[in-house]
Amino acid sequence: MSTNKTYIEQNKDRFLDELFGLIRIPSISARPEHKDDMIKTAEYIKSALLAAGATISELKSTKGFPVVYAEKIIDPSKPTVLVYGHYDVQPVEPLDLWKSPPFEPEIREGKIFARGADDDKGQMFMQVKAFEMMNRTASLPCNIKFMIEGEEEIGSPSLKDFCIQNKELLKADIILISDTTMIASDIPSITVGLRGLSYLEVELTGPNRDLHSGLYGGAVANPANILAKMIATLTNENQHITIPGFYDDVVEISAEERKEMAKAPFNLENYKKALDIEDVLGEKGYSVIERTGIRPTLDVCGMWSGYTGEGAKTVLPSKAYAKISMRLVPNQKSKKIDKLFEDHFKSIAPKGIRVKVTSLHGGEGYVSPIDTPGFLAASKAVEETFGKKPVPTRSGGSIPIVADFEEVLGIKSILLGFGLDSDAIHSPNENYPVSHFLKGIETIPLFFKYFCELKK
Amino acid sequence: MSTNKTYIEQNKDRFLDELFGLIRIPSISARPEHKDDMIKTAEYIKSALLAAGATISELKSTKGFPVVYAEKIIDPSKPTVLVYGHYDVQPVEPLDLWKSPPFEPEIREGKIFARGADDDKGQMFMQVKAFEMMNRTASLPCNIKFMIEGEEEIGSPSLKDFCIQNKELLKADIILISDTTMIASDIPSITVGLRGLSYLEVELTGPNRDLHSGLYGGAVANPANILAKMIATLTNENQHITIPGFYDDVVEISAEERKEMAKAPFNLENYKKALDIEDVLGEKGYSVIERTGIRPTLDVCGMWSGYTGEGAKTVLPSKAYAKISMRLVPNQKSKKIDKLFEDHFKSIAPKGIRVKVTSLHGGEGYVSPIDTPGFLAASKAVEETFGKKPVPTRSGGSIPIVADFEEVLGIKSILLGFGLDSDAIHSPNENYPVSHFLKGIETIPLFFKYFCELKK
Repeated sequence: MSTNKTYIEQNKDRFLDELFGLIRIPSISARPEHKDDMIKTAEYIKSALLAAGATISELKSTKGFPVVYAEKIIDPSKPTVLVYGHYDVQPVEPLDLWKSPPFEPEIREGKIFARGADDDKGQMFMQVKAFEMMNRTASLPCNIKFMIEGEEEIGSPSLKDFCIQNKELLKADIILISDTTMIASDIPSITVGLRGLSYLEVELTGPNRDLHSGLYGGAVANPANILAKMIATLTNENQHITIPGFYDDVVEISAEERKEMAKAPFNLENYKKALDIEDVLGEKGYSVIERTGIRPTLDVCGMWSGYTGEGAKTVLPSKAYAKISMRLVPNQKSKKIDKLFEDHFKSIAPKGIRVKVTSLHGGEGYVSPIDTPGFLAASKAVEETFGKKPVPTRSGGSIPIVADFEEVLGIKSILLGFGLDSDAIHSPNENYPVSHFLKGIETIPLFFKYFCELKK
Repeated sequence: MSTNKTYIEQNKDRFLDELFGLIRIPSISARPEHKDDMIKTAEYIKSALLAAGATISELKSTKGFPVVYAEKIIDPSKPTVLVYGHYDVQPVEPLDLWKSPPFEPEIREGKIFARGADDDKGQMFMQVKAFEMMNRTASLPCNIKFMIEGEEEIGSPSLKDFCIQNKELLKADIILISDTTMIASDIPSITVGLRGLSYLEVELTGPNRDLHSGLYGGAVANPANILAKMIATLTNENQHITIPGFYDDVVEISAEERKEMAKAPFNLENYKKALDIEDVLGEKGYSVIERTGIRPTLDVCGMWSGYTGEGAKTVLPSKAYAKISMRLVPNQKSKKIDKLFEDHFKSIAPKGIRVKVTSLHGGEGYVSPIDTPGFLAASKAVEETFGKKPVPTRSGGSIPIVADFEEVLGIKSILLGFGLDSDAIHSPNENYPVSHFLKGIETIPLFFKYFCELKK
């Protein structure tokens, strides 16, 4: 057994204990009532990095929640890897669907169940423990820096400014991020593309108060009916988005590239079975993998209006709301899409309905080349631990800050993620296989090793 | 001043005090946690009727909440008026829009503000106090019975059976109900038509759990997007309902009748101003009054799906729900419409979405002739107190039990209501002008007087 394998075997129970301690702090960045928990979580990571061997580890304040910055510089002439991760998690509603409480981690069938088990506490903590191992086994081959933020789940509103203000401090040759998935344990993959995001909230106001649906129904524009009509027209019968100009900046993928993508293993029957759906639905003319990988989409993430309690209340609501997420492909600009959406959405409202559109979150897509030392090192490392050459894939998800890193810091990112689509991130019963947590800790030092070799 | 006017003047403060006591009990029939309050409210009315002079006043149990039954039989050979009302009220959400707490009645600008101030505690209590006055001034001209139920706001599920089982007890010449509106204080009107109702809840299920909108968005039918699309198609661009067969039983009103209706005073600018809307919206080819009076409609009363909290959660929801109310016109049958809706709604769902439809509430419409002693007595009574002959109008609202009364008991109803459209019933800041409360108490004994004279 390799030194690293032995180290992991001997320390895995402690690794899990420490991760569980981190998970237990409910660091939901979207909820003001968890403000104190956010600081507690940042402090927990600061201490963990010091204990792992960082020479500097501190909380750097931002406009929002602090960034944990840490480093160990072994030789300024050697390459530097900047590890990025986040310590905040998504809200946990609907609570009644969790089989165990979201902040009391529990291992069932080899998986850790908890909010943040994968996204991103579990994956980020692999980086911390891999660093500890490289330190204790005297195998750290280069300099390492950590930048762990607390606002990823709310769109990283402070991180771009933080990068601008700390350009010198954050200097590095590559950014390493574990916050993505692979296709399966036996089909390792590395994400080389991410989608951008425009996330907006719309508010429709009809009459100045809730009305009796009998006395007014049929005579007054009902914001709930109208919201349904307006959302309905945003996509056509081919699931194509109808906002004028929406596809203007979308780069069409060549037939050859699509052929290449089609080789990625995908089983439609298993996919449908796992979600318990009779059929998939998406943009006409594209495969399931293309629909999430290379095409932009529009999803209602939340919608509410009127009476939602038990029984029947005959009300014509005054207000109706929706949260709408558009996933964008590289080259589409989030701010431009926000504006196109807002102009179009307001233009389709009938008289008698006032519309307010608020942007809640946004960021650009990203594509990483596959001929760089970073990608090659990641590919070799994964091949060594998973036994198969990883497939480069495009993820439907978004890590908007990755595009900002390139713009502000001029550094490329490598998305060395070990999650699975079945980890239910952002959902009830989020989970992360213990085996992936441990395999990740084993893979990361190999990335460091090969990256330094290739950079020579 | 008439005896009655003097009596009202001398007792009005006590009348209001007693009404406030009734309002303070939060008798929300839709909410199981108010079960005890329902009984308390029924007891309050039972005692009030005894105090007013009823010889019998008791709680009659039903499958649901009890009916308060009371009577005073002065001479079996004389006519009998059966007063119907309800002691339950609507839920109070959204609570933050109330200017004063819903169950702490407060008089501002001559109006009582509270849940139930009008619907129906305020209006029903006028009947109790009018009865007291006729008793104390020895002017009760005929027999009187009371049937005050506690389930009107949830569709009177037990009252039809109660009527079937108590046909003999409830024998009467006319049913008198104060639970409707008039056009304005200076434009008195009497409701001669009510709409029927089909109220359904729909539940859409897509994937078996909430999904990450990035990883799955674009590939899986999103129940929130689909719900919007399905609701959108239920009405066309002319606000005409598209459910096949929906209009089959609608009786078209003759051009002459429509001409007659058009004479009812209606000011579009004031209507829009009162609701703070730029324009009205409704079925093409019909006026505002026709849209609520003689045409069926479809309104979303509530809608919810996914994440509705603060900030951005990038989720593709597993479920989406809506509460949909269809107001029907006389001759349309609620159960038939339920079935047409369910069949159609299920047929338009795409593969990958499962649909459940539940009927929550229903009832038939009603039209009352205007040449009967009941209507003529009501008209004379209102003319005497309001100084103008009342206009017969059709209300957009529903009191489904009125059609049942005719079917089961064979008795016509007179809708002698004193509310105003601006009373905001079912909404925050429900209110009822004190002047209407007192005018109602003055008008009701006149109805009794003229009705008995006409019945001779």
